[in-house]
Amino acid sequence: MAAVLRGSRNLWGRSLKHVDFTLVSSRSMASKTQVGFIGLGNMGKPMAKNLLKHGYPVIATDVFPESCKELQELGAQIVDNPAEVADQADRIVTMLPSSPNVIEVYTGPNGILKKVKKGSLLIDSSTIDPAVSKEMAVAAEKMGAVFMDAPVSGGVGAASSGKLTFMVGGVEEEFTAAQELLTCMGANVVYCGAVGTGQAAKICNNMLLAIGMIGTSETMNLGIRLGLDPKLLAKILNMSSGRCWSSDTYNPVPGVMEGVPSGNHYQGGFGTQLMAKDLGLAQTTATNTKTPVPLGSLAHQIYRMMCARGYAGKDFS
Amino acid sequence: MAAVLRGSRNLWGRSLKHVDFTLVSSRSMASKTQVGFIGLGNMGKPMAKNLLKHGYPVIATDVFPESCKELQELGAQIVDNPAEVADQADRIVTMLPSSPNVIEVYTGPNGILKKVKKGSLLIDSSTIDPAVSKEMAVAAEKMGAVFMDAPVSGGVGAASSGKLTFMVGGVEEEFTAAQELLTCMGANVVYCGAVGTGQAAKICNNMLLAIGMIGTSETMNLGIRLGLDPKLLAKILNMSSGRCWSSDTYNPVPGVMEGVPSGNHYQGGFGTQLMAKDLGLAQTTATNTKTPVPLGSLAHQIYRMMCARGYAGKDFS
Amino acid sequence: MAAVLRGSRNLWGRSLKHVDFTLVSSRSMASKTQVGFIGLGNMGKPMAKNLLKHGYPVIATDVFPESCKELQELGAQIVDNPAEVADQADRIVTMLPSSPNVIEVYTGPNGILKKVKKGSLLIDSSTIDPAVSKEMAVAAEKMGAVFMDAPVSGGVGAASSGKLTFMVGGVEEEFTAAQELLTCMGANVVYCGAVGTGQAAKICNNMLLAIGMIGTSETMNLGIRLGLDPKLLAKILNMSSGRCWSSDTYNPVPGVMEGVPSGNHYQGGFGTQLMAKDLGLAQTTATNTKTPVPLGSLAHQIYRMMCARGYAGKDFS
Amino acid sequence: MAAVLRGSRNLWGRSLKHVDFTLVSSRSMASKTQVGFIGLGNMGKPMAKNLLKHGYPVIATDVFPESCKELQELGAQIVDNPAEVADQADRIVTMLPSSPNVIEVYTGPNGILKKVKKGSLLIDSSTIDPAVSKEMAVAAEKMGAVFMDAPVSGGVGAASSGKLTFMVGGVEEEFTAAQELLTCMGANVVYCGAVGTGQAAKICNNMLLAIGMIGTSETMNLGIRLGLDPKLLAKILNMSSGRCWSSDTYNPVPGVMEGVPSGNHYQGGFGTQLMAKDLGLAQTTATNTKTPVPLGSLAHQIYRMMCARGYAGKDFS
Repeated sequence: MAAVLRGSRNLWGRSLKHVDFTLVSSRSMASKTQVGFIGLGNMGKPMAKNLLKHGYPVIATDVFPESCKELQELGAQIVDNPAEVADQADRIVTMLPSSPNVIEVYTGPNGILKKVKKGSLLIDSSTIDPAVSKEMAVAAEKMGAVFMDAPVSGGVGAASSGKLTFMVGGVEEEFTAAQELLTCMGANVVYCGAVGTGQAAKICNNMLLAIGMIGTSETMNLGIRLGLDPKLLAKILNMSSGRCWSSDTYNPVPGVMEGVPSGNHYQGGFGTQLMAKDLGLAQTTATNTKTPVPLGSLAHQIYRMMCARGYAGKDFS
Repeated sequence: MAAVLRGSRNLWGRSLKHVDFTLVSSRSMASKTQVGFIGLGNMGKPMAKNLLKHGYPVIATDVFPESCKELQELGAQIVDNPAEVADQADRIVTMLPSSPNVIEVYTGPNGILKKVKKGSLLIDSSTIDPAVSKEMAVAAEKMGAVFMDAPVSGGVGAASSGKLTFMVGGVEEEFTAAQELLTCMGANVVYCGAVGTGQAAKICNNMLLAIGMIGTSETMNLGIRLGLDPKLLAKILNMSSGRCWSSDTYNPVPGVMEGVPSGNHYQGGFGTQLMAKDLGLAQTTATNTKTPVPLGSLAHQIYRMMCARGYAGKDFS
Repeated sequence: MAAVLRGSRNLWGRSLKHVDFTLVSSRSMASKTQVGFIGLGNMGKPMAKNLLKHGYPVIATDVFPESCKELQELGAQIVDNPAEVADQADRIVTMLPSSPNVIEVYTGPNGILKKVKKGSLLIDSSTIDPAVSKEMAVAAEKMGAVFMDAPVSGGVGAASSGKLTFMVGGVEEEFTAAQELLTCMGANVVYCGAVGTGQAAKICNNMLLAIGMIGTSETMNLGIRLGLDPKLLAKILNMSSGRCWSSDTYNPVPGVMEGVPSGNHYQGGFGTQLMAKDLGLAQTTATNTKTPVPLGSLAHQIYRMMCARGYAGKDFS
Repeated sequence: MAAVLRGSRNLWGRSLKHVDFTLVSSRSMASKTQVGFIGLGNMGKPMAKNLLKHGYPVIATDVFPESCKELQELGAQIVDNPAEVADQADRIVTMLPSSPNVIEVYTGPNGILKKVKKGSLLIDSSTIDPAVSKEMAVAAEKMGAVFMDAPVSGGVGAASSGKLTFMVGGVEEEFTAAQELLTCMGANVVYCGAVGTGQAAKICNNMLLAIGMIGTSETMNLGIRLGLDPKLLAKILNMSSGRCWSSDTYNPVPGVMEGVPSGNHYQGGFGTQLMAKDLGLAQTTATNTKTPVPLGSLAHQIYRMMCARGYAGKDFS
């Protein structure tokens, strides 16, 4: 299967480079040895549960001890801090809210890198600034470990059902090893390139999503004011060049579609605050790379205004 | 067939109203009587040719006599002005560049309404302000004629191959009559509601298209600067929530797709100037209906800046 | 005094053209003959009162009869409609809410132009689309009358105290005649050029004002969040290149200045809805002249969003 | 003089707190002891020259040795790196292009903090992220030194003539000491509050400046297209509520004013690239503090687009 997967990776047109595999010789990939998991929030907990379901012994930690209870009952070993996880497991997945948390968990006083074993595989599924991912990769490399960024697309539902999409950045030779774990938690695992490109892909997708969502909202609103029936307008857009995910899969106008947050007072779904955070990352990376992103930037501002007006917890549509 | 079509129209959930059909009693719909066509530009000429191909005698005019030559050679009758067209044909299609041209062709000194026959069907396929469509409908009604707006989606290629999409606004009872002609020139004919809603649907679609196109451009550009391969990024977006027509069908980055203007120095396709014009209409209708359209408005401004910098004739991608 | 004023006008660098003054021979400028006034709203009423104060007999009308009472008690003659005003007065000032009202009052069935005397001077102080001003000027000219646009800067307070600024567009030779009346109602009367340029100047000023106001608001807000004292920040901006009218005269942050709406729960002042209307005019003229105005356009959208969220009646700061 | 200055500071309404002044006991403020200067670029060189003119012995360094020649000829002592400057001077001014340079010069292997004396006063006049200023202040405090941020307003001309404005953040008790040096280089020295507030004030001013400049440009352009004379329009704006620094002091339209870059093909002045950098800082601080800045954000994007189109080196107007 590894051959098949590697073959499919080669479709992306990337060549293999010569690397020193002595680095990873101590890591046991064939058997289901213990996997570390750090960050048991809304997303992390169901992800760790899926690792357990697939037969991996899990050793986990979280800053909030109560978050660990359910996992402990399911058989996971709970320890005090990331350093202790790293002391026992040579494959670790982290799922944290933002860049400062990642920096703390990896390089802090009780961080992973204090006790990481040589050859360990560290997979960070948080959505953070790709520049931070690169810093973590450099710091991990100094300790002889491999860091990969693997942010996810899909919400709590997809995390529970193991249907997340992972966008993975890092040394290509380690992708198969990462994939072994990630396929337990997700339906799609896509190799994106060097460290940080997983984050880049995630950020790009969410920026375009935000633009499409706001664009769809104002278009639907304009059409309704011009006398068009919302369902009819959605139908026309979806058969024409205005079509996008926000118009055909997650329409923001109540009553146009069933089973989406717009039909349920914008409860559930992907919070406006989280979208604002991702757009902030897009903004920061655009500023750092001097890339003009006028619509992405305005979308960011609009979500910021929505948050400032008290809609932070509502779905972004 | 009429029954089938009417049936399909009812799917849109609109009920039939009682109307006075004496109005249209004089119009012969069964046989292929002469059809008027006014405006033989890049779009109008292939449209009129498709009417000829389907066996309709065409009587046409254009302000530029040279535009009429080809059609005359194909058997169309050429007359001097719109009034003379209206004097002979009781079904007329108009395809003109902008609102003032439509006003002139309908209500000018040699306009259609000077000699229009009672019961005539007047179909305007120009893309204009829906408010002007409504004015024309009122003026036509005073003369006992029926006006419908039927702007198109699709460019010169679709016009030539008869694959345009028509978005039709007007009295529902006349839709079948309009459809008889429009199906000769297009693959989809969609009934949108009262007069002006065809324009509204067109404007809404193009506004969302413009937002999606600029959004895709900046997202692809950001991703490339962050180290992602453009083809890979397009693939990821298209399997995720960032997906839109501009990312999966008309990608603006050279080399990502074949057969689109981006692969050919942005030649051909849909001109930046035309997009700016449509966004101007969107802006005007939004202002008149007091609808906030922040992204649509910024997209308009960006296309205006592109035009001001000399890219008016390039494809909008 | 006329010589002085004409001299001051020449400072604007405009040369006098030879015109036929027989047109205005019948109008008596030396004595204080009757002046017509149409539109007695919040602005129009105090303006008409200032004409009365300066000794001009006023003949007035308004669509709402109750608006006329106070003026009638002060000695003005009230008539039924604009045509009757034009039947008696050869100098008329109009002050109306928007373009359609102006069109109705000038060219409607009981409009001024139905009974206007040859050589009459018609001054419109409404803020409307300059294109409509030009249409009215053409229509007036056909009847042998002179139309000038003279929109105002300054609110109800300035209207009451006679301290408005008038921006006047029209035939330069008539400026002195207009000025005679306008100086009774305003402190500054500026000649701007051909018909419509008064509106253009007003629209341009208000667009830049809106940009400055929103810019000041977000800057003050950002500074406060970064730990700056608002009064100190305003002081720094005002001594630096960030200085603008909104920062030094009408600061939007409560407590920074006294005697401005921000210090009084944004009551009074210039309504958000009115600003949105003026920005809509700016947008329309920009679209018609194909001028990119990205910040003006976004400012328009932001005021539209404010109106949509229920702040239409609050001051624009 | 200190009393007077302190008095003027108290105008800002800040009270004195009790602090331990033993920290600064070793620093000799009365006599003109050596002052360190790091960063001898376009701005730094004339600033250092002004210190020399005021009788201060200067010890300086720069990464480009050739930048040091002129200063050396004027009597300054040139050393190899920041650490050596700190070894000799207990008052140091730094003037560097961006955040990474500041981090390097203060905390790098040959950085100031490697050899800084207890009680030293470190004044950074670079324009950088206020968060970095705070980090440097913390790092300096650990070494027993005092760090203040003091970014400048005004360009190379103001630096040469000693007419810069300094916006100073830091411990208030040290402001007088900083002021002693800064008044040699600037006309205004304003105390803004805690460390980082100098940067905050600078960033806020430049964001509002950018908004005002682009706003003025589009307004002037719109007015000209509507038929207004540019000088007349500028005059009207400047006597009305549209007035701002960009309209009355630095008008972007060639021919409206003399002695500004717009009259000289936009040569000289404040580069578009530098403005884009400052707007990037504004964007970053706004994102970090979750402050909506829609116009500031769009202004940033517009300057980014200008840079991307090759105008990076032109004046920002």
